[in-house]
Amino acid sequence: KPSYRIVAIPGEGIGPEVVEASLKILQHVAKIEGFTLQVDYGWLGTTAFEEFGSYFPQATAELCDGADGIVFGAVTKGGLLELRKHFDFFCNLRPIRSVKSLLHKSSLRPEKIQELDILIVRELVSGIYFGPSGRSSDEQGNYGYHTMRYYDEEIRRIARKALEQAQCRRGLLTVAHKENALPHLPWTRLVQEEATQFPGVVVEPMLVDNLAMQMVLNPQQFDVILAGNLFGDILSDIGGALVGSIGLLGSASLNDNGFGLYEAIHGTAPDIAGLGIANPLGTLEACILMLQQWGEVQAAQRIIAAQDRILAKGYRTADLFTQGEEILVNTATLVGLLFE
Amino acid sequence: KPSYRIVAIPGEGIGPEVVEASLKILQHVAKIEGFTLQVDYGWLGTTAFEEFGSYFPQATAELCDGADGIVFGAVTKGGLLELRKHFDFFCNLRPIRSVKSLLHKSSLRPEKIQELDILIVRELVSGIYFGPSGRSSDEQGNYGYHTMRYYDEEIRRIARKALEQAQCRRGLLTVAHKENALPHLPWTRLVQEEATQFPGVVVEPMLVDNLAMQMVLNPQQFDVILAGNLFGDILSDIGGALVGSIGLLGSASLNDNGFGLYEAIHGTAPDIAGLGIANPLGTLEACILMLQQWGEVQAAQRIIAAQDRILAKGYRTADLFTQGEEILVNTATLVGLLFE
Ligand SMILES: CC(C)[C@H](C(=O)O)[C@@H](O)C(=O)O
Ligand SMILES: CC(C)[C@H](C(=O)O)[C@@H](O)C(=O)O
Repeated sequence: KPSYRIVAIPGEGIGPEVVEASLKILQHVAKIEGFTLQVDYGWLGTTAFEEFGSYFPQATAELCDGADGIVFGAVTKGGLLELRKHFDFFCNLRPIRSVKSLLHKSSLRPEKIQELDILIVRELVSGIYFGPSGRSSDEQGNYGYHTMRYYDEEIRRIARKALEQAQCRRGLLTVAHKENALPHLPWTRLVQEEATQFPGVVVEPMLVDNLAMQMVLNPQQFDVILAGNLFGDILSDIGGALVGSIGLLGSASLNDNGFGLYEAIHGTAPDIAGLGIANPLGTLEACILMLQQWGEVQAAQRIIAAQDRILAKGYRTADLFTQGEEILVNTATLVGLLFE
Repeated sequence: KPSYRIVAIPGEGIGPEVVEASLKILQHVAKIEGFTLQVDYGWLGTTAFEEFGSYFPQATAELCDGADGIVFGAVTKGGLLELRKHFDFFCNLRPIRSVKSLLHKSSLRPEKIQELDILIVRELVSGIYFGPSGRSSDEQGNYGYHTMRYYDEEIRRIARKALEQAQCRRGLLTVAHKENALPHLPWTRLVQEEATQFPGVVVEPMLVDNLAMQMVLNPQQFDVILAGNLFGDILSDIGGALVGSIGLLGSASLNDNGFGLYEAIHGTAPDIAGLGIANPLGTLEACILMLQQWGEVQAAQRIIAAQDRILAKGYRTADLFTQGEEILVNTATLVGLLFE
């Protein structure tokens, strides 16, 4: 009977509510599937700063060491980039799948997003978020700068992850680049070189501006999209827009040992924090990715089925609710329904 | 009777066709409105390289000196960034307006884009396209880098242009930034400081990832969007996707004297080049912006009316054509119809 240790980092805003809801569901399927989950609580962001004087305290780092996964809520500022960097979570997986019973929530025509199934693979610990940066001045005045820097090997290692994913899926890897303006970051060539080891995968380089446009014009053309840190950030939010609510999307951020950080794509949503009405399905989606990463495929499948069932029946948290046939529920009720 | 001198730079691909078509229409309205147009031809990109050994030859720069406007087609690579920089065309205006008779071309639901009227103001001669860049190596290996650098004054001057535009429109200026990851580029503060001179304008800072998402979820919320060079590139292509065809969009790039470069947003479209079927309306839209910049408002209005009339009648170039009530026409026929 396997046993896993999770570090839960609730953070701020709706973070604590959605993490708590997701953990309840995880414990529920653990019992059914016959494994155990130990949960430790860690701090990050503002609450960490208040408690420890640091946005990413040493105590949190130590707690996470040797855990089987980190389930993270949301923070407004501070700590998250440091956490990602500390554990070298370079491989960020962001699946974008449309849900049949929610097609009408999208601003896109339903036929443009039905059976949408895109995986965004985003490099998460390098690029412009982590390159040399600062403020300075010269005879022309004050300026600020951030450097989009990539070691070739950083591009190659995330390329290999994306190629692996594409090989297990439909075999198409679209690579975001901007080589007509940023020629010293040769994503196309480096990915193509790695791709010689993946003969089943077609590599399609695409200028990031065009890619953003194509995601709106014709999203069904994509399988796996590979992007650097900044481009991946923007493209995955466009992905969230396609499926109608960012509240449904979760992501996994893995290092080379398969250890990972699991979080929803949405933020702290301070306007609804503490009201008990937040949508836990984004964090739950992240937990499904964690179960899959552990090889607990049946547990993952069980949650997916439960989720599809209640969405098909019309149960909706406030972010997804529109007047009509649908039934408005709060977080606790939704969790209860998932148990049935 | 005023007289204007234009430098036409056809470039490559469909560039020559759409520039030629647009010039014909310009000459036509010039005759009606009673002004004269002198046209000189300049080189840029690959054709310039073949002729002069440079993507942006001195001859082209000299030809443009003292002209009243540059009408540009498209190039695949080389020369364009240099041309923009040479004349300090820092203020790039990209209007995104939906056309009533083309609402059904969009992948978005018609009610999401009807009466859409966004103006993207993009900084065009600084940021990561022009900051220190190169390839290098250290003990960790080879790397490439590009620096997103902005002098505060570069942000302030484009902010003032965007604020002016917002003041003449609906008074809302959304500012794209990414300060949670790029804190040394304080767009929010600098724009807010400039905004004290524009009491009628509400400034709304928005993280660029969220902004990209909001443009898809609910584009009608926007009036003027201000963005740096790279973010503006991506956001304006999303704008193109919203209205269904990038073939309709044009842009003006102005320097502080009001001298400008006018071009469509689309590229060279090599697959259809030379076939006489390209859509000239993007370049024509750019020419309309040029006429407005000159104060030839009546001439501009005349072209807009003609264009709306033929689109409403169902005439479409191949990029916009779908089987049904519509009438497929080539470039020459479309130009002829605009004259009627
Ligand atoms: C909070 C922010 C720094 C972060 C990012 O840009 O990576 C967020 O937008 C995300 O996508 O996880
Ligand atoms: C050709 C390319 C360098 C250019 C840009 O990124 O500025 C183009 O995409 C544009 O938007 O005008």
